[in-house]
Amino acid sequence: MEPLQVIRTSQPKSKPNEGELGFGKYFSDHMFVADYTSERGWQNARIIPYGPISLEPSAMVLHYGQEVFEGMKAYRGMNGEINLFRPEKNIQRMNMSCDRLGIPQVDPEWMLEAICKLVEIDSDWIPQRVENSLYIRPFIIATEPCLGVRAAKEYQLLIITSPVGAYYSSGMAPVSIYVEDHYVRAVRGGTGAAKTSINYASSIKAQEEAKRQGYSQVLWLDGIEQRYIEEVGSMNVFFKVDGEVITPELNGSILPGVTRDSVIAMLKHWGIPVTERKVTVEELFEAHRQGKLEEAFGTGTAAVISPIGAMKWGEQSIQITEGHIGEVSGRLYDSITGIQQGKIDDPLHWRYLIG
Amino acid sequence: MEPLQVIRTSQPKSKPNEGELGFGKYFSDHMFVADYTSERGWQNARIIPYGPISLEPSAMVLHYGQEVFEGMKAYRGMNGEINLFRPEKNIQRMNMSCDRLGIPQVDPEWMLEAICKLVEIDSDWIPQRVENSLYIRPFIIATEPCLGVRAAKEYQLLIITSPVGAYYSSGMAPVSIYVEDHYVRAVRGGTGAAKTSINYASSIKAQEEAKRQGYSQVLWLDGIEQRYIEEVGSMNVFFKVDGEVITPELNGSILPGVTRDSVIAMLKHWGIPVTERKVTVEELFEAHRQGKLEEAFGTGTAAVISPIGAMKWGEQSIQITEGHIGEVSGRLYDSITGIQQGKIDDPLHWRYLIG
Repeated sequence: MEPLQVIRTSQPKSKPNEGELGFGKYFSDHMFVADYTSERGWQNARIIPYGPISLEPSAMVLHYGQEVFEGMKAYRGMNGEINLFRPEKNIQRMNMSCDRLGIPQVDPEWMLEAICKLVEIDSDWIPQRVENSLYIRPFIIATEPCLGVRAAKEYQLLIITSPVGAYYSSGMAPVSIYVEDHYVRAVRGGTGAAKTSINYASSIKAQEEAKRQGYSQVLWLDGIEQRYIEEVGSMNVFFKVDGEVITPELNGSILPGVTRDSVIAMLKHWGIPVTERKVTVEELFEAHRQGKLEEAFGTGTAAVISPIGAMKWGEQSIQITEGHIGEVSGRLYDSITGIQQGKIDDPLHWRYLIG
Repeated sequence: MEPLQVIRTSQPKSKPNEGELGFGKYFSDHMFVADYTSERGWQNARIIPYGPISLEPSAMVLHYGQEVFEGMKAYRGMNGEINLFRPEKNIQRMNMSCDRLGIPQVDPEWMLEAICKLVEIDSDWIPQRVENSLYIRPFIIATEPCLGVRAAKEYQLLIITSPVGAYYSSGMAPVSIYVEDHYVRAVRGGTGAAKTSINYASSIKAQEEAKRQGYSQVLWLDGIEQRYIEEVGSMNVFFKVDGEVITPELNGSILPGVTRDSVIAMLKHWGIPVTERKVTVEELFEAHRQGKLEEAFGTGTAAVISPIGAMKWGEQSIQITEGHIGEVSGRLYDSITGIQQGKIDDPLHWRYLIG
């Protein structure tokens, strides 16, 4: 592989106020770009000043949606060091997503090196506040200019980074969710297990309708029987029932989340029973009636742990943990963010030190 | 609505050889562009020289796939006149697709005017040969630079045109298809009835595997029971069984094709029995065993009518019409293309004359 070319910006941007970062609104000074052609493979890897890209109007991504992406974060540790969190898992998943979408895979080492180099060059964009971080968004788009429906022969891999604030601007708070029984996110044989734009586009309408009804997220059921719980919003989902933590098993239509995997491993490390299996929405509401639904939470890179305080399913509404943060939810949040931020020990070796 | 601004190219391109057009490889001299913001609505409508577009790397279409498109054609008639084919149906469907994807709709009259004006300006790009045409591709993309998962607040509508050859370069010929029983294109509650990139991205892998096995298209089954026939490749599908033409009923996961609608109307006009209902793949193979499966064909803007000559389902392979073009398939092809090309009468008033 040819060496990575670096062209630094001559006009660094001023940094946004750390108290007003939000999510994905500001972008750092540089981006990584590489090109793919079927003749030459991935090539022309470069870090260049962040800015608009030029696409042919017939670029296939704009017509047939061949795209995959990833989301991860760089954290500033207690002593100024820079940590990633299990980056190899994201890269591995990106290659799985590529396979499903007919997109050429990348060399994992090359990709990790690109991420590290980009973060190093823009290290002054990693926020200082411990609860903030630098969000990293690698994505691949089909750039070949052609309107035929087939796998493209030309692609671009980009990596952009964005300083982001704490997901909960005023502290972690439980969200209310709405069990979606009309719209479907994914079905086995579809693309639900891949991280690709196409799963998100299909969810926007349902999400908007949930918001209109006063709920902040949608709970997705399976596409076949619409009974089995799959995900919540764009997160994986866990329930604590009668002392046991349960999460829907990976069935081909659920995203294999890195935070999901980490939560399962951490619970096992602690000796808390955790099971991956099918979970019906009926079962949950029945557990609630029996007073056994102790906690519910979503997991994802953006929020890490997002406690669920209320759920609506048809005409039934239930409250969980009475507006408080559940004990396991809180402990997981503190431990995983503590590891990410370098504040506590890292028993499962998840931190990846840059530089 | 403000008037349409026109900036003509000062460097017209040379036209490709009409014998080597293919599909969607060459693009004419101009394109239509309009911008949308949530404050100002659709605005800044302009026809400008065809060329690359500039997108922020964080443009939401590249991450969450909010996109819709249409496909239609302009034909040069016998006396040099220019015809569209039922353009109001495409515009109506585009607005339905917008609704499903959370994208702002367009004013149908404004859109039709934009298409007509663009085709007029590039009228010398409409091929001379009667079997060729100018393919018109309107599409809307979410351009807002933001990584939050929600409906974008900024969009761009583009219309590009491409001179295309006859779908069958050496005359209409039956294709062989493969009944897909692993991958799923769409499911009710999903986006299958919308014309959006995301339905195509999910199909590429299945299409590639069918090609590897020597089949040119995939026959899609429903996402729930994987028994009911939905579409073939990126076309709607029809079967003639024992004198009756049958097509899968629109169920929310099947694209409501303009050619599909035209085929149904034309069959009714001719007095040939046609039924929209659920069709299982078992039923078809059973009809074949009884010698009653008389014809099968796909319908779409690109091919108009695409006869199906062979089908494989698991271990079973069948031949239909013994390599010939079925009588109804051929008559439909001749009639619909005849109307499009202005060669014959237009009993159902489908031609739309430009200028």
